[in-house]
Amino acid sequence: MTKPILWIAPGACSLAPHILIREAGIDFETILINVKPGFPEEYRHMNPKGRVPILQIGDITITEVPAIMTAISQMVPGKHLLGKTNLEIVRTYEWCNWLSGTVHAQAFGGVRRTYRFSDDPETYESIRAKGRKTVEESFEYIEERLQGTHAVGDSFTAVDGFLLVFYRWGNQLEFDMRAKYPKFTSLVEEGLERDSVKAAFREEGIEFWV
Amino acid sequence: MTKPILWIAPGACSLAPHILIREAGIDFETILINVKPGFPEEYRHMNPKGRVPILQIGDITITEVPAIMTAISQMVPGKHLLGKTNLEIVRTYEWCNWLSGTVHAQAFGGVRRTYRFSDDPETYESIRAKGRKTVEESFEYIEERLQGTHAVGDSFTAVDGFLLVFYRWGNQLEFDMRAKYPKFTSLVEEGLERDSVKAAFREEGIEFWV
Ligand SMILES: N[C@@H](CCC(=O)N[C@@H](CS)C(=O)NCC(=O)O)C(=O)O
Ligand SMILES: N[C@@H](CCC(=O)N[C@@H](CS)C(=O)NCC(=O)O)C(=O)O
Repeated sequence: MTKPILWIAPGACSLAPHILIREAGIDFETILINVKPGFPEEYRHMNPKGRVPILQIGDITITEVPAIMTAISQMVPGKHLLGKTNLEIVRTYEWCNWLSGTVHAQAFGGVRRTYRFSDDPETYESIRAKGRKTVEESFEYIEERLQGTHAVGDSFTAVDGFLLVFYRWGNQLEFDMRAKYPKFTSLVEEGLERDSVKAAFREEGIEFWV
Repeated sequence: MTKPILWIAPGACSLAPHILIREAGIDFETILINVKPGFPEEYRHMNPKGRVPILQIGDITITEVPAIMTAISQMVPGKHLLGKTNLEIVRTYEWCNWLSGTVHAQAFGGVRRTYRFSDDPETYESIRAKGRKTVEESFEYIEERLQGTHAVGDSFTAVDGFLLVFYRWGNQLEFDMRAKYPKFTSLVEEGLERDSVKAAFREEGIEFWV
């Protein structure tokens, strides 16, 4: 098999599949790029949508977090990275679609990529404020929905790594995550003990609590 | 097996899983609700996120389009509604996540659910205009990406039904769909011939070209 290459940016949503590919124990490479000022034009041929993560396997290119997670899980079916039962797998896609579309694109997108929603800078303060409100409502929903230290079933799945990314971003927006979301915090603390997570942070050159 | 119940609204994104469950040939019921003025409060216990589609199977409740599609496909694995090969399945999730998060939530959401992005009505014209621009860019991307009359592989998958919904909405926004997007149009025309699609339109009480 060709060695998969995962295109990521430090601390971006690509951290979730990065953690997952390490959980999978697959031999892979990363290409670390900077997307803070926008996706670099010289790489747009890799993904015309201009986003990381990108998973490259030979001449196949896969985009979108849940699709990349699916591809990773398919490489090691015995590890059940998307859940053990049919219903767990459905729950994983339910979490991931909401995290990707509502929490990431709509809520955090409004705060951090405000220009995606309007061309008029006069509107940005209002869009950012609404994004922040949606982030907060989303965190409340997560806290309400979690029942243990894993989002799906009783072991680590793709969802736990994805949740960890948004917890870290919440911390960066100065939400008092630990005080307000104790269940979410336990899930994340369990994640932080995992070798996959530690190695991913090391490679991306980032820390969790900053 | 308990008969699944699909909660839908006429012509909403729930049309995509509605078409799919008919493709599956499963015995099911629908509950048709009106979400135009917002999700009805009396049903919020069914989905605290306040959205259709909802798939109810006994006391299990599943939300989010790609998760519901996964559950439907699991009921009839031999029909390969998400694609025939591992790579096709990955492509289905790639399409669905982008259609749900970028095309639906961000682009059409900006146009039709503008209040999700700002609390200040003075910003709405600008958010709507940007949403419309993102819809147009998305249609261009779809047209560029399509290679035949099916989005994934050489037969009908969940993606084709989902694409059909956005084509219809594009038509409602008065984009000249037929003239501008010939490949997208062929895909939709093939879909409109399917019994599943015809029956779904009949049941929802809607027509395609309006
Ligand atoms: N729907 C995409 C979202 C990916 C995304 O928004 N990635 C961000 C990093 S967190 C990015 O590449 N942004 C670059 C830009 O917006 O220019 C997915 O699920 O992969
Ligand atoms: N991410 C959700 C989006 C569902 C959604 O936005 N549904 C719309 C209908 S197209 C809705 O119920 N809107 C009611 C409202 O916004 O109040 C999914 O994939 O199911």
